This record gives sequence, structure tokens and C-alpha cells, in this order.
Amino acid sequence: MTICQVIGHVWATKKEESLAGLKLMVVREMDERGRTLVAADAVGAGIGERVLVVSGSTARRAMGRDNTCADCAIVGIIDSLEVDREAKQA
Amino acid sequence: MTICQVIGHVWATKKEESLAGLKLMVVREMDERGRTLVAADAVGAGIGERVLVVSGSTARRAMGRDNTCADCAIVGIIDSLEVDREAKQA
Amino acid sequence: MTICQVIGHVWATKKEESLAGLKLMVVREMDERGRTLVAADAVGAGIGERVLVVSGSTARRAMGRDNTCADCAIVGIIDSLEVDREAKQA
Amino acid sequence: MTICQVIGHVWATKKEESLAGLKLMVVREMDERGRTLVAADAVGAGIGERVLVVSGSTARRAMGRDNTCADCAIVGIIDSLEVDREAKQA
Amino acid sequence: MTICQVIGHVWATKKEESLAGLKLMVVREMDERGRTLVAADAVGAGIGERVLVVSGSTARRAMGRDNTCADCAIVGIIDSLEVDREAKQA
Repeated sequence: MTICQVIGHVWATKKEESLAGLKLMVVREMDERGRTLVAADAVGAGIGERVLVVSGSTARRAMGRDNTCADCAIVGIIDSLEVDREAKQA
Repeated sequence: MTICQVIGHVWATKKEESLAGLKLMVVREMDERGRTLVAADAVGAGIGERVLVVSGSTARRAMGRDNTCADCAIVGIIDSLEVDREAKQA
Repeated sequence: MTICQVIGHVWATKKEESLAGLKLMVVREMDERGRTLVAADAVGAGIGERVLVVSGSTARRAMGRDNTCADCAIVGIIDSLEVDREAKQA
Repeated sequence: MTICQVIGHVWATKKEESLAGLKLMVVREMDERGRTLVAADAVGAGIGERVLVVSGSTARRAMGRDNTCADCAIVGIIDSLEVDREAKQA
Repeated sequence: MTICQVIGHVWATKKEESLAGLKLMVVREMDERGRTLVAADAVGAGIGERVLVVSGSTARRAMGRDNTCADCAIVGIIDSLEVDREAKQA
């Protein structure tokens, strides 16, 4: 999973039918790459929240239907994140 | 999904048979990386439009046949995109 | 597999139900890219340890249930790593 | 799919048995990244040609046998490529 | 497939059980990125050799058991590699 922040919404009237009814959010990876992706929301995330995002076939599992044409999904809302900066070469 | 723009077409007479009849579009990722890819079109997209693009096994699902040899597909045409630039460290 | 170091923990109360009960660790790839990821722990790893991390559908296999919505998992704790720096152009 | 150019051949006597008899070509991605990959040839491509290349499980589909251990395959020979450079922010 | 060189070994006593008995090698991609990965060896490769490496679900196929938790595998030892440097824009 990658750690992302929810930064927006996408609307698409014309889309592959399995995507109908899904909430599509714009997320940005919170690492050096900072990629911007569109993820289907499986947990009810809101703008500004830090979330866990999965990709590939796992995203289809997250939406509960293997034939959903989403390859990116939000699967968790991060409450807290504890990183040990000292751990780098322990 | 990634946000791409449709920028062209590709023609290939000699190709793996499952690709016959598919419309193959050149798309460019609209992020920092700006990768250029070729995607099968599942929604009738046109040049210049911003689209949602899926990769990997999900692209095969989008084309409706799991044995289609496409690993990249256009699954939606973006009507609007709303990004909250303030959300970066909310 | 990539070689990562465990550097932290993530807590997420609201999450896709298949993730319930999994220990979610923050890991950092120990190569030039140094990406930060969140991995489900299949082996009982601790902070500071060097571990083997798998991605994609293999991560679901590692958690023992193909419907687990994790696309990154810790599958081994590295005891030792022997690299022959002379081997570069042998 | 990515757009690549065929730039060479690879020979490997000792290989996983499912790869026996496959033609293995060296291809280079024709974008900024310019990655060099080895792809199994499903269409009879020659040195210097521009080709469409798929990755991952889709490459196995292209070789006609899901248990083929190739994760990269040439699936089309590009006749022409038409890119609208003006389309960038249409 | 990517072209890698075998540069070392990894030992991990505590690991996901499907990895028991596999030889885990450290490999480095021989392109500009030069990523370092850990691959399960399906062909008996040695330090210093140039090898073909597959990723993702294809690596599980290479190890002969779909439930093996390896997402990277060595599937061939390269005898020779012939690259036409003139082919770049043929």
C-alpha cells in the first residue's frame, strides 16, 4: 500500500459500465515521487485525509467485484502513523 | 487509474489476433512523469480529451474479454476534475 | 522481492474489512529509490529489521487469503546479505 | 502497451522450460525513460521495427499459454503513429 | 524480462513457509535504473552471471507453484546478447 492524501474528485459521465456508482477520488502519494492517481473509494474518505491506497488486481478485490475496472482503490483512513527516523541503519 | 490526455492513434496491421478491431490510442500521463502509452479505447474517446486509464489485468477486464492482449485501456472520459491545492498537509 | 527496512507502524480504524487484524508496518526500500510503503506483516517483523517485501497479487498469497486487500507484504526477515561488489561486470 | 524499438536478440541455453522455442528480443522503450527490456515475440518482429509491448500477466496471454514464464511480449508491429502535439492542453 | 546480474545471496531463517528451500539471490538490473532486487532462482544461476528476471505473478509460475510467495524469479542464464546500436531510429 502507499500512503496518499485525498486531494480532489473526478467526474466522468461516459465511463466503462462497471465504474457506475463508484466515488472516484484524486489522491497524491505522500512520498518523494508524489504521483497523482485516481482511486475508487472503498471506505468513505474525505478531502485532506491521509489514506492507504492499493493498486492492480487488489483494487478490484477491494471494490468487492473482480470485474470492476478500477486498478486503484482507497482501503483505509489513517488514524496515526508512527515512524522511527532512527531506524534507518539499526 | 491515471489521468491521461489522448494525443494520437497507432496503426498496426500485424498484431496478436485478440487485438483485431480495437481502437488503439496514444495517451500521455498528465503528471510529472508524463509517460506516453498506447491504450485500447473502451469508451469512444477523442483526441485532446482527458481520460481515465487503467493498466495490467484490469485493462483486460475493461475490454470485456480476459484473453485480450491489452495491458492498458481507457475506461472513462473526464468531465471535470476538482483538486483542492490547500489539502496538501491538512 | 525488494529489500526494505521496517521503520514504523500505521493505525487505521476505518478500513476495508479484509484488513482487520493485520499488522500494518511502514517500510522503506533500501535502494536508491528509497520508496516508503505500507506492508502487511506475515512473519512478525520488528522496527529496524531488514526484511523481504513482495508486491501485487503475491502479497495476497502471503497473507493466506486471496481476498485480502493488501498489495504489499513482509515475507521474510533477513539474517544476512552477502553482496559481491566485484561482480558488476564479471 | 508501450512503444518500443527492437534492438537485438538474447540467447539463453539454460532457461525455465516454458521458454523453450520462444524468440527473445531486446527492446528499448521509446519514451523519456528508455528502459531496455527482453520481450518474447508473438508477431515476427525484426531488428529496427517499432513495436507494441505488453507486460505482466498479459504477456503470458499473448504467448498463448498461461504458464509461459514470460512477463513481457511483443504483440504488434507499428505501421504508423499519428500524434497531435497541439493536443497537450486542448 | 529484465537483464540483471547476480551479485549476491540472502539468508532469511524466519520467512513465509512457501519460501522454504528456495535459493534467494541478490540481482541488479543492468540498465540505467540499476535497481537491486531479490529473486528466487529457477535455473541454478551463479554469482556474476547475467540472467533474465521476471516479476509479479509470472515469478510464481516460474517456481512451479502458484502459491509460492516470490514476486521475482531468475528464469534464464544469458549466453549472449546481441544489440544493434544503429537500430535506434531505423
